[in-house]
Amino acid sequence: MRIDHVAIAVNNLDQALKNYEKLIKVNNIHIENVTNERVKVAILNLEDTRIELMEPTAEDSPINKFLLQKGEGLHHIAITADNIEEDVSKASENGVKMLGDIRKGSYDRKITFIHPKSMNGVLIEMCEAVNH
Amino acid sequence: MRIDHVAIAVNNLDQALKNYEKLIKVNNIHIENVTNERVKVAILNLEDTRIELMEPTAEDSPINKFLLQKGEGLHHIAITADNIEEDVSKASENGVKMLGDIRKGSYDRKITFIHPKSMNGVLIEMCEAVNH
Repeated sequence: MRIDHVAIAVNNLDQALKNYEKLIKVNNIHIENVTNERVKVAILNLEDTRIELMEPTAEDSPINKFLLQKGEGLHHIAITADNIEEDVSKASENGVKMLGDIRKGSYDRKITFIHPKSMNGVLIEMCEAVNH
Repeated sequence: MRIDHVAIAVNNLDQALKNYEKLIKVNNIHIENVTNERVKVAILNLEDTRIELMEPTAEDSPINKFLLQKGEGLHHIAITADNIEEDVSKASENGVKMLGDIRKGSYDRKITFIHPKSMNGVLIEMCEAVNH
């Protein structure tokens, strides 16, 4: 397991990209609409880790709610699972609370989320490794 | 550049470690007092990335202030610099606002922080790569 990416809620993707490119050397940027979550994401590919900037595309997007409540900032971290079904079911058995089932996220890979109450206030995504 | 670690503010290191070990496969854990920042950190070494759990060791620790204001949760992300002096000075010239000078952090390596106002609400640490 390793940190796959950190995801940041932003009001405006273009403006945020300008800020991030002042500081961080980015190999390439992948833009994607994740319709499930009603967000547009800019995935900044660094050396084998990623920063995802997320802008809501609908009022009822969970990211829009986050922005209204807390403003721009860190939203979640994602950890690559070795085997997402096994890892998640083992954690569940140990009392870790999940947020929904395993589903498709960016790059069309399987993801799920862990409840922040189980993780000292941190929203954690478990995801498959990216093969691209 | 890559994500070196994410740092999480917690009230109690032992309790947080128990939670994190339910979900995440950790290669080894390094415990350290970072006297500069008045925190005790548990560094969870994953595959070439790290999660730092931070418990304040003094009332005037910046992490204690964070916990009182916001509660437990994501505190900052750290990006490895290629050359910390060059990268930070280049970002400064582009208008990115720093928080203090380059100084020593955990693992005795050079670090500095970027103001969240320059980074859409995210506190970013720039650090040297770990060689250990």
